[in-house]
Amino acid sequence: MSLAGNSSQSTPLVLDENRLFASDPVQRAIARRLYAQVTQLPIVSPHGHTDPSWFAGNAPFANAAELLLVPDHYVFRMLYSQGISLDALGIPHADGSRAKVDPREAWRLLAKNFHLFRGTPSSMWLNHVFHEVFGLRVKLDAGTADHYFDHITDALQTSAFLPRALFERFNIEVIATTESPLNALEHHATIRDSGWSGRVITAYRPDPVIDPEHEQFPSALQYFGELTGEDVHTWEGYLRAHRQRRAFFASMGATSTDHGHPDCTTADLPVDEARKLFGKIVRGQFTPAEAATFRGQMLTEMAAMSLDDGLVMQLHPGSFRNHNQRLFETFGRDKGADIPVRTEYVHALKPLLDRFGNEPNFRLILFTLDESTYARELGPLAGHYPCLLLGPAWWFHDAPEGMWRFREQTLSTAGFYNTVGFNDDTRAFLSIPARHDVARRIDCAFLAKLVAEHRLDEDEAAAVAVDLAYRLPKQAYKL
Amino acid sequence: MSLAGNSSQSTPLVLDENRLFASDPVQRAIARRLYAQVTQLPIVSPHGHTDPSWFAGNAPFANAAELLLVPDHYVFRMLYSQGISLDALGIPHADGSRAKVDPREAWRLLAKNFHLFRGTPSSMWLNHVFHEVFGLRVKLDAGTADHYFDHITDALQTSAFLPRALFERFNIEVIATTESPLNALEHHATIRDSGWSGRVITAYRPDPVIDPEHEQFPSALQYFGELTGEDVHTWEGYLRAHRQRRAFFASMGATSTDHGHPDCTTADLPVDEARKLFGKIVRGQFTPAEAATFRGQMLTEMAAMSLDDGLVMQLHPGSFRNHNQRLFETFGRDKGADIPVRTEYVHALKPLLDRFGNEPNFRLILFTLDESTYARELGPLAGHYPCLLLGPAWWFHDAPEGMWRFREQTLSTAGFYNTVGFNDDTRAFLSIPARHDVARRIDCAFLAKLVAEHRLDEDEAAAVAVDLAYRLPKQAYKL
Amino acid sequence: MSLAGNSSQSTPLVLDENRLFASDPVQRAIARRLYAQVTQLPIVSPHGHTDPSWFAGNAPFANAAELLLVPDHYVFRMLYSQGISLDALGIPHADGSRAKVDPREAWRLLAKNFHLFRGTPSSMWLNHVFHEVFGLRVKLDAGTADHYFDHITDALQTSAFLPRALFERFNIEVIATTESPLNALEHHATIRDSGWSGRVITAYRPDPVIDPEHEQFPSALQYFGELTGEDVHTWEGYLRAHRQRRAFFASMGATSTDHGHPDCTTADLPVDEARKLFGKIVRGQFTPAEAATFRGQMLTEMAAMSLDDGLVMQLHPGSFRNHNQRLFETFGRDKGADIPVRTEYVHALKPLLDRFGNEPNFRLILFTLDESTYARELGPLAGHYPCLLLGPAWWFHDAPEGMWRFREQTLSTAGFYNTVGFNDDTRAFLSIPARHDVARRIDCAFLAKLVAEHRLDEDEAAAVAVDLAYRLPKQAYKL
Repeated sequence: MSLAGNSSQSTPLVLDENRLFASDPVQRAIARRLYAQVTQLPIVSPHGHTDPSWFAGNAPFANAAELLLVPDHYVFRMLYSQGISLDALGIPHADGSRAKVDPREAWRLLAKNFHLFRGTPSSMWLNHVFHEVFGLRVKLDAGTADHYFDHITDALQTSAFLPRALFERFNIEVIATTESPLNALEHHATIRDSGWSGRVITAYRPDPVIDPEHEQFPSALQYFGELTGEDVHTWEGYLRAHRQRRAFFASMGATSTDHGHPDCTTADLPVDEARKLFGKIVRGQFTPAEAATFRGQMLTEMAAMSLDDGLVMQLHPGSFRNHNQRLFETFGRDKGADIPVRTEYVHALKPLLDRFGNEPNFRLILFTLDESTYARELGPLAGHYPCLLLGPAWWFHDAPEGMWRFREQTLSTAGFYNTVGFNDDTRAFLSIPARHDVARRIDCAFLAKLVAEHRLDEDEAAAVAVDLAYRLPKQAYKL
Repeated sequence: MSLAGNSSQSTPLVLDENRLFASDPVQRAIARRLYAQVTQLPIVSPHGHTDPSWFAGNAPFANAAELLLVPDHYVFRMLYSQGISLDALGIPHADGSRAKVDPREAWRLLAKNFHLFRGTPSSMWLNHVFHEVFGLRVKLDAGTADHYFDHITDALQTSAFLPRALFERFNIEVIATTESPLNALEHHATIRDSGWSGRVITAYRPDPVIDPEHEQFPSALQYFGELTGEDVHTWEGYLRAHRQRRAFFASMGATSTDHGHPDCTTADLPVDEARKLFGKIVRGQFTPAEAATFRGQMLTEMAAMSLDDGLVMQLHPGSFRNHNQRLFETFGRDKGADIPVRTEYVHALKPLLDRFGNEPNFRLILFTLDESTYARELGPLAGHYPCLLLGPAWWFHDAPEGMWRFREQTLSTAGFYNTVGFNDDTRAFLSIPARHDVARRIDCAFLAKLVAEHRLDEDEAAAVAVDLAYRLPKQAYKL
Repeated sequence: MSLAGNSSQSTPLVLDENRLFASDPVQRAIARRLYAQVTQLPIVSPHGHTDPSWFAGNAPFANAAELLLVPDHYVFRMLYSQGISLDALGIPHADGSRAKVDPREAWRLLAKNFHLFRGTPSSMWLNHVFHEVFGLRVKLDAGTADHYFDHITDALQTSAFLPRALFERFNIEVIATTESPLNALEHHATIRDSGWSGRVITAYRPDPVIDPEHEQFPSALQYFGELTGEDVHTWEGYLRAHRQRRAFFASMGATSTDHGHPDCTTADLPVDEARKLFGKIVRGQFTPAEAATFRGQMLTEMAAMSLDDGLVMQLHPGSFRNHNQRLFETFGRDKGADIPVRTEYVHALKPLLDRFGNEPNFRLILFTLDESTYARELGPLAGHYPCLLLGPAWWFHDAPEGMWRFREQTLSTAGFYNTVGFNDDTRAFLSIPARHDVARRIDCAFLAKLVAEHRLDEDEAAAVAVDLAYRLPKQAYKL
């Protein structure tokens, strides 16, 4: 593989070693020294959406577009926002069909419009992948599109680019995927039985069997019963089924559950009311408010189970899923049309916290898409309740600016030690080192500012940097 | 005219060439190079509130107070907040009367209290006007008040300070004013027929005939019918009247409509329900909720018309108008007593977006007075929907800090290319170069930080700077 | 007392003279020059929670833990959030009992966990107290815990560390405490009659006799009647009782009232409706909405009284008090479990502002725990209404980042001169110089940035720095 560009007009692609560090020389020097202590640490990835079949099957990825464009809704949403159709990019429809698109043509569209990503995290992550994973040394643009496509597609056919080889090259100590209770975890079993040393664990994400408004809820519930042998149409049987699947997930390495609710409502109903509500849910005769209460009750039930089985809870609220109705009808879920909404935590979490907020063995990691809650609600909550920790800047806020705001707005109330380090939360496997690198650099830059302004000594900052990059995620997620 | 001060005690007024650029020498040097590429670009002003009669009549402005104090509610609201009465400043009452105030005395009040504006955009804009437009070289204070008043008032009587001469001196390529559908656009006609080359266009702002809670709605509707010859008391006639006036506005150069609603509600009612609702509106028998739905329905109707006539929609929601009841009763609208309120976009825009969100020829530019929506709602919406673009930091946020927050909070999700460059949105004609200069400097400073932290190459930053200053506003507004 | 550490392994504790100033040399040099002009100014503390009995009795403080840990909920909430029980720290229960804890053991827990405070204001304040007040020169950690405990506890027994001596050493010109209308102000009387020159004044905080949902409201109301000799179970008598106590508080030096409401609701009912509502309140037969309306009505009544007696109103809304139910039951109020909630000002304040917003002799200082209101609501309100001023960054936001955001988000709309300088708002007497020092440094750093970016001349910045540190608090609070 040639590392150079294919054209005299192409411009060099450089990853500056000081990227994301302040230009102020005092801060930059400190940031460099801090970063030197974390850059080689293994990657701990406690929450994400990689596909376990990659590591089970270890088959090569198909081509540049299929690997880097089609699964990445961060990327194709930006192209869509500027009038490029999802069909032209080869994005599959909800029914599994696809417009007939040459992947090379789709890739050219990305290349030609790569300027749209200027300054965005996507451009940073992709350039990191291009430079570090594929050794490319010219920028992606219309003139280098084919060179990129060929170079990447060729590389993917080599053994060094098989999923397990990349996993090892990326220095991943452990990675968690996310599965529904209905998932048999056969890929995780394959990995475990294969003798390969890579640690790929699962996480219990029960939304499809908990959210009565999910379009697949009735069939999911049905299958939940078949899978567990429990009568899941009774409240007690339904809860037993959860306990059973949680135990199975834990046996396959899971240390956490994950809950992606539209809001943060929790409830703590007397058991007979809960049973009655579940009856309505099962019969499909419920109002939106009852659906919300049921989801909220289930958060409290999940917390109760966590007290027993030790799984760490994660709560990811506040996304209005599938906002673009026409796109949803054609292309289905997860097509870049999820939009954050205002989210309230203080009243919403009270029923759960009233019951379990002071339990020494309970742990709930809170995320948000509503940054106005960092300083107002989340920092003060996490800076008081022993069970609460704050997850990192999430999704739309997983960007240098978003990470900075997270630290800047939670530090004074929650400190560093009520946070859990970084989550990459990604489907884009190749970008994982890029994403952790950005997080480590921003934390070092943030700490460097504190040191330069004499709020922290450099040895303390170095300890914090290592804690954030490595120790805290392991401790918070029991890894 | 003397350029020097009138007193040995006056302090020099200096506009530093590096103003608004970071003091860090690396960032400053980059910002200077970027700024050098945009400082000479013509001004494109696609949204504002200058008075077309100025350019039609080309009569001299009266005096310093009448030009720079009386029409600028940014300025007199600050003085009012510190206990100076609007009467003492010569602000006209709602009934057209005025307290008998010597303009020089009013000006002295501004001068004596000019320290109240320290650090505010008003002080930056005014000092720019003083220095660059009037060549003043001493600071405004109690000691220089008369010197200022005389110097400015004298200058205004000279030909170089007539509105058209200033328009040309300011290098304005095109400016849009904002008119009600009831406006005959006679000043625009005069300008067009005058042979003068200045491009002054209008924009269609139908709030007075769309908002049933506007105090003049019934009479405005009446006149709307007379003007168009349509039976505007029927739903179909009312819509035809809008189409007719939009066509007339377009023929007078308009490329956009503008909608200043209290919130962002949109609606998409079946036609018979819309007709029924309009009946209630016309009869004046409606609830506040029905008024809101009607305004929301009209946004969707306006969008439908935009699909046909190509006018770009602008939505400016979230101002609680005339909050100070006593002031409103005496002095009327636009007296600095409009206060922003929390604004929701995600649910509110859905009816309109469900219908037109994916239309390739529809364009809706969103503004906000609620910055908490930048990262949470507006960036993610504009980074997905092809029809949506983000207007710049608006009104209370049109300040260096507000512009920086806009970029810092929308970049990662919407990028630069789902934004439309700068709007000056001003009645203060003389401040237009100052305002565009601030916007260009802040964008260059922001880009310089990205370059200095190795997130963007300088050639890319230069391309973005030119796009933001010139190319994007022309493209977004079809100018 | 030895100033050096007790161990070869202890690390030096240094307060850098440039702390909190930007590392950029241009900004730092300006900040240093500005700070030099304010660092020696006396402390004006117009709002806080020190105990007047300290200054009345002038008895020595007991020991390090009792002085610096037990009363400081900023400190013990962070320890609690990491699983350390309040009993282990010696925090008293609501019933006055306490777990049997050696204060030295409690202090060791703080020392061992002092890394949790890295980067927080608590660590900055405590280190300032350790270094400046006690002359300690090694850092607090597990190894130096006993040295600290002994050194501080010994010092407290000396005359130089008696409350009045510290008051004088701290250069406090005036300090306000906060008392309930039921308080006899006997400590203030003792101070006044003692001949000591220290100025310790009170402030009128009527929440316990105004909030019908306060758990002690009925008994407080009863005592309010006994104390004033008014029939406080009638509306007119109740209002007269307030007037009487306000006059008494003013006679004891009070220049302000303070109102800590859950939200910002105000009301302006016709007198017969107010009377009827008060009847329900007195009978204990009211809904939560009626309680809110009553509190809102009382804000307007308090404003009316302020017009007469000249007391400055302070409004501190937006804290969900005692969020942790179990902790509240055992340990009572003010145990670090108060959590901010979203707060609305624009609609909520309108009834009060409609009545008194334009009164030249009325003054209302607004605070917030919801920073999203700074730029959206509070800046624009204070930049218009003559009666409104903005209190400083409060409670959870009283931190370098929070202060910076306050300035950065209110400057363009309210300027500097609609703000009131700093409040320390603290029970932690020894930290008062530290807190004012942080505020002065941050204001100087903020001003230095404006100067370095040529938005303000340095002489103007110096005037603003002095105004913020000294002149504005005196003027705003009529001190």
